[in-house]
Amino acid sequence: MGGLLGVAVLGAGHMGADHVRRLDRGVSGARVVSVADPDTDRAKEATAGIDDVRVYPEPEAALDAPGVQAVLVASPGPAHEDALLAAFARGLPVLCEKPLVPDAAGALRVVEAEARLGRRLAQVGFMRRYDAEYMRLRSLLGSGRLGRPLMLHCTHRNVSSPPHFTTDMLIDSSVSHEIDAARWLLGQELTAVSVLCPRPSRNASEDLLDPQFVVFETSGGALVDVEVFVNSGFGYQVRCEAVCENGSARIGDGHTMVVTTGGTAHQEVAQDYLVRFADAYDREVQAWVDATRQGRVAGPSVWDGYAASAVAEAGVRARRDGVRQTVDLAPRPGLYADDDGHLGAVARTLA
Amino acid sequence: MGGLLGVAVLGAGHMGADHVRRLDRGVSGARVVSVADPDTDRAKEATAGIDDVRVYPEPEAALDAPGVQAVLVASPGPAHEDALLAAFARGLPVLCEKPLVPDAAGALRVVEAEARLGRRLAQVGFMRRYDAEYMRLRSLLGSGRLGRPLMLHCTHRNVSSPPHFTTDMLIDSSVSHEIDAARWLLGQELTAVSVLCPRPSRNASEDLLDPQFVVFETSGGALVDVEVFVNSGFGYQVRCEAVCENGSARIGDGHTMVVTTGGTAHQEVAQDYLVRFADAYDREVQAWVDATRQGRVAGPSVWDGYAASAVAEAGVRARRDGVRQTVDLAPRPGLYADDDGHLGAVARTLA
Amino acid sequence: MGGLLGVAVLGAGHMGADHVRRLDRGVSGARVVSVADPDTDRAKEATAGIDDVRVYPEPEAALDAPGVQAVLVASPGPAHEDALLAAFARGLPVLCEKPLVPDAAGALRVVEAEARLGRRLAQVGFMRRYDAEYMRLRSLLGSGRLGRPLMLHCTHRNVSSPPHFTTDMLIDSSVSHEIDAARWLLGQELTAVSVLCPRPSRNASEDLLDPQFVVFETSGGALVDVEVFVNSGFGYQVRCEAVCENGSARIGDGHTMVVTTGGTAHQEVAQDYLVRFADAYDREVQAWVDATRQGRVAGPSVWDGYAASAVAEAGVRARRDGVRQTVDLAPRPGLYADDDGHLGAVARTLA
Amino acid sequence: MGGLLGVAVLGAGHMGADHVRRLDRGVSGARVVSVADPDTDRAKEATAGIDDVRVYPEPEAALDAPGVQAVLVASPGPAHEDALLAAFARGLPVLCEKPLVPDAAGALRVVEAEARLGRRLAQVGFMRRYDAEYMRLRSLLGSGRLGRPLMLHCTHRNVSSPPHFTTDMLIDSSVSHEIDAARWLLGQELTAVSVLCPRPSRNASEDLLDPQFVVFETSGGALVDVEVFVNSGFGYQVRCEAVCENGSARIGDGHTMVVTTGGTAHQEVAQDYLVRFADAYDREVQAWVDATRQGRVAGPSVWDGYAASAVAEAGVRARRDGVRQTVDLAPRPGLYADDDGHLGAVARTLA
Repeated sequence: MGGLLGVAVLGAGHMGADHVRRLDRGVSGARVVSVADPDTDRAKEATAGIDDVRVYPEPEAALDAPGVQAVLVASPGPAHEDALLAAFARGLPVLCEKPLVPDAAGALRVVEAEARLGRRLAQVGFMRRYDAEYMRLRSLLGSGRLGRPLMLHCTHRNVSSPPHFTTDMLIDSSVSHEIDAARWLLGQELTAVSVLCPRPSRNASEDLLDPQFVVFETSGGALVDVEVFVNSGFGYQVRCEAVCENGSARIGDGHTMVVTTGGTAHQEVAQDYLVRFADAYDREVQAWVDATRQGRVAGPSVWDGYAASAVAEAGVRARRDGVRQTVDLAPRPGLYADDDGHLGAVARTLA
Repeated sequence: MGGLLGVAVLGAGHMGADHVRRLDRGVSGARVVSVADPDTDRAKEATAGIDDVRVYPEPEAALDAPGVQAVLVASPGPAHEDALLAAFARGLPVLCEKPLVPDAAGALRVVEAEARLGRRLAQVGFMRRYDAEYMRLRSLLGSGRLGRPLMLHCTHRNVSSPPHFTTDMLIDSSVSHEIDAARWLLGQELTAVSVLCPRPSRNASEDLLDPQFVVFETSGGALVDVEVFVNSGFGYQVRCEAVCENGSARIGDGHTMVVTTGGTAHQEVAQDYLVRFADAYDREVQAWVDATRQGRVAGPSVWDGYAASAVAEAGVRARRDGVRQTVDLAPRPGLYADDDGHLGAVARTLA
Repeated sequence: MGGLLGVAVLGAGHMGADHVRRLDRGVSGARVVSVADPDTDRAKEATAGIDDVRVYPEPEAALDAPGVQAVLVASPGPAHEDALLAAFARGLPVLCEKPLVPDAAGALRVVEAEARLGRRLAQVGFMRRYDAEYMRLRSLLGSGRLGRPLMLHCTHRNVSSPPHFTTDMLIDSSVSHEIDAARWLLGQELTAVSVLCPRPSRNASEDLLDPQFVVFETSGGALVDVEVFVNSGFGYQVRCEAVCENGSARIGDGHTMVVTTGGTAHQEVAQDYLVRFADAYDREVQAWVDATRQGRVAGPSVWDGYAASAVAEAGVRARRDGVRQTVDLAPRPGLYADDDGHLGAVARTLA
Repeated sequence: MGGLLGVAVLGAGHMGADHVRRLDRGVSGARVVSVADPDTDRAKEATAGIDDVRVYPEPEAALDAPGVQAVLVASPGPAHEDALLAAFARGLPVLCEKPLVPDAAGALRVVEAEARLGRRLAQVGFMRRYDAEYMRLRSLLGSGRLGRPLMLHCTHRNVSSPPHFTTDMLIDSSVSHEIDAARWLLGQELTAVSVLCPRPSRNASEDLLDPQFVVFETSGGALVDVEVFVNSGFGYQVRCEAVCENGSARIGDGHTMVVTTGGTAHQEVAQDYLVRFADAYDREVQAWVDATRQGRVAGPSVWDGYAASAVAEAGVRARRDGVRQTVDLAPRPGLYADDDGHLGAVARTLA
């Protein structure tokens, strides 16, 4: 497929607007060509600054807009089934935010519809499968190095829940992430479930049973327990410890996986700067592209480059001669007096 | 500026090829329109699969190619000065890999040339300023919460150095990153430098003084010490501890900043899933866009969506009824028997 | 009570012999005056080198030996009830290794016997209540700073279980530690219990259901879940995370308690050297007393003291004069050529 | 040597009083028979409750008291030389707090005096050699597993310094610990030293150069750098990272040594409960001995033992039957209503 992928986005709420921004400025290879939302004002707001994008109140109109090659569904859950079927009818690939469909019966109808098509068009937005830590954990489990998984201990904590949040939603909205993650990490189906509720936290709204403790059994004889606590107050914490026959591995503390085997706990240490600083390189170049498109220059200046060279040269002399060297900089041209990337901001604060 | 930013890339070696890929598929808003490298074969290899890109042996030709709006310089350091001056002559914004120019005198000529232009066109590729940990550390120092910085303790370790690496390069190539980072973190110039060398590691090649220990003094009365060890064998480790009047902050261990003040060591805990999983969302949508452009479907399937709904429904029943519930899934259609994102790979390994 | 406490130890197996050593050389204020074990040979072995100690095959004889003022019960569990009642009959204070009595009915008989006495004589050996981390965690919970506890997540892993270990013993021998710890940490009784068993690890002996997952409910509406895994292969790991209304606290990773509240994870940092090095001071003085009683001298020598002074003096000069100073030591007398605490051992290895 | 070691303690200040307590109640095998301090009142206070101890204003009198077999010197540094020579004259083994003698010339006189005796009598109180972390680090370095040590990076921070603390004392009192530790860890002498001082912290008293940065060179070609910061405000932190040819090892963060080799960072995981809970066992038995000598009973009661058995029995039933079991406790006798070790304290706080 030549050129950029033309995407119709259904829904321009919190999540939809974020995906519009992401397709436009966060990832490469795509462009937003149409957005549907009953509230066309917020759809227009979400697409401000994007060229050649059309806004519609109706999903079907957005799907039929010229240039649409794929669909991203970010409308409310109850609208997903119709949106998916409409995409299938048009043969359009679709990325559908979770839940696929809120109820299992509706989800099964979508499965059957796609099965009738005889080819896959849809992907569900379980984004943990794309998280670096989860990917590392799955890779480790899949390698067989730790032996068969016996238990997953999961923690899912939010700072606080929105007003409308219900007791059921702790499971069908929050724990649904662990449900998919467990199936994906273990390669097994979940076959039974038990739930225990401690006396609720006083920080939860009245009538909300929060936290809950959920234990799943799997087709491979493993257990998966989940603490879900949506009014923890102390942070957004998503952790998972896989306990296997020959070791355990834990993710979710400080963005590093800790593996424990035979008497030691290990943390991987990066071996290469392109790994350690991969995000920094991306962020650097993206910032430069963005600033340049807006006619701005920011970031480290040539003065910074010169200063680094001058200091390094003094360092080399100090090493060679074995004595302390002072650094003598040329006078700084006014052009660099207060550039964005330079010393001003910190120095002023600390003065 | 409408449309995508047209970029000329000078140099198609390791770093240049990586930037070509990044501009094409890693960041949004830009396209590679020309690449210059004396070795046009490797330039062609680097640009394989990119539409409408031209390859030249000479930098000037690449700068003059139609559609060039900006320049990324990734050629060897000795070629930087000419490349920067050529970009300045054409009024082109430029992102120049470090070092700006290998020697301070040459770097100063570039400073003077840009100062004569009277406006900034160039940014130097000190990518640590875009690393999430360094940004957090600078933000913390800039906030003044820890008081005035007194010392930076820095570690810069590589697994091994390439064959051509010299004793001087430990400072002017490796430590140059710490030089810029220290200036940027502290908002101060480095004014003097001392270097001590222990007896070299047996893992360093003959005649290479590795490791070295460098101590800088700054215009604000702080000290910056750097262990540089390019044949450590044990990892690529970049760490920095800022010791201030009222606390210390350390980055580089496990991708989390540890702040110590008044009797406790703190680690920030994310407060929001869009923060914690920002990278996962980007990676998810990028993977979907890439697959879709190639006519493929991957990632979580609608069967995964259905299974999650069915399990969640059983979970809600288990919570309501207070007893264990089994999960009954419909038969899985053959379409999902061995899809990429599903259970097969792990299950097969663990069977 | 003047003089040393005279203690009868019942049982000279693994645990009993360790307690004999501890009373003799590990703690102050006590002396072992009698030991009972059916295997008098191993009782004699356990008491080798202790003056004035008597060995008996029968517990009663050990209790009636001259000078007995207290009893430590380390015999097998089934013998505990008789031992406790015999101590009660003699009015002797007693420290009884866990379990008090293996079955609840027998334990209740001991409770009733002591209640009839009308005063407490017995203490049970739940030693976690004396572990520094558990004490810190209880102190934190008792302070109310984190609000009401909602859940305790516990891990109890052994490297491997002894041959005779049974499926029941995972709970009544291993989890019994968590049972007491949970009651003590929460100040609540445990009121119900559920157990789930994953398919056993291949590293467990045939017929042993290992690991198990146990969930307790408490009188205060909290939940306590315990992973017990006695053939984990990877370590002896005892961890506990208390999840409260306003924060969580975790012990068991690296001997430090991590507390998470409002957006940060904290670790306590010692404020005083007597806290940080308390164990070192005890160990130092104990080592000196032990060596001196044996007519030996070990540890840092006066040569070490001199060398430290000489280097420190050079350091003070270096600071005052602002230049590097060399250190000139006097010739080392032969007396210190190869003393125990000195440089020899490491230097030889590294030569 | 039969019986307890009779010790004379010279000095009853902060450190001396602590050692008196330690010899009497913290370690086994010794008893305090005499204490000397010009301030006999504080000497009496330090020895309150100890039987048969004599107090003198003069050191010599304390050394000559009946039953003295060894000496612990905890008087001010300037008094050490005379005390050591007096002990040597009497052939008494001596443990001398650091510094051996404040100035190198005096320390050398002590060395020469002991060398003339022809046998070692004195040990210097460098207690870090007895710290578990330092012992682990030395053992690791001595094993040769990490190759030759190249650098030690040391941190020595206090919360605040006492009023009389001088700029010189940062080195000759504080860094003297690192001086000995470095000599002991490396098995090498320190041969040269350089000192750099950043602009002092505002939290240091006027005229105090705090922090300082000290770099030592060693006879084996290693470097040892020390940040000493006695008014850090944020904690008592003593850390040491040994950087070797094949890996690094760091102690001082959270009481665990972290070893980094070939791509992973490791932490040791205990393999045995007697290792993990060694201190808890000692503390438990010491607490029991102390309480018993005072006619008290504390710690876990037989009620606690009964409750544990009853819960464990329910747990075993729950596992066998596969369903949740409630726990039914007998009524609690009044004797255990509010015993020290029980639930009261925490429960009341949390009510």
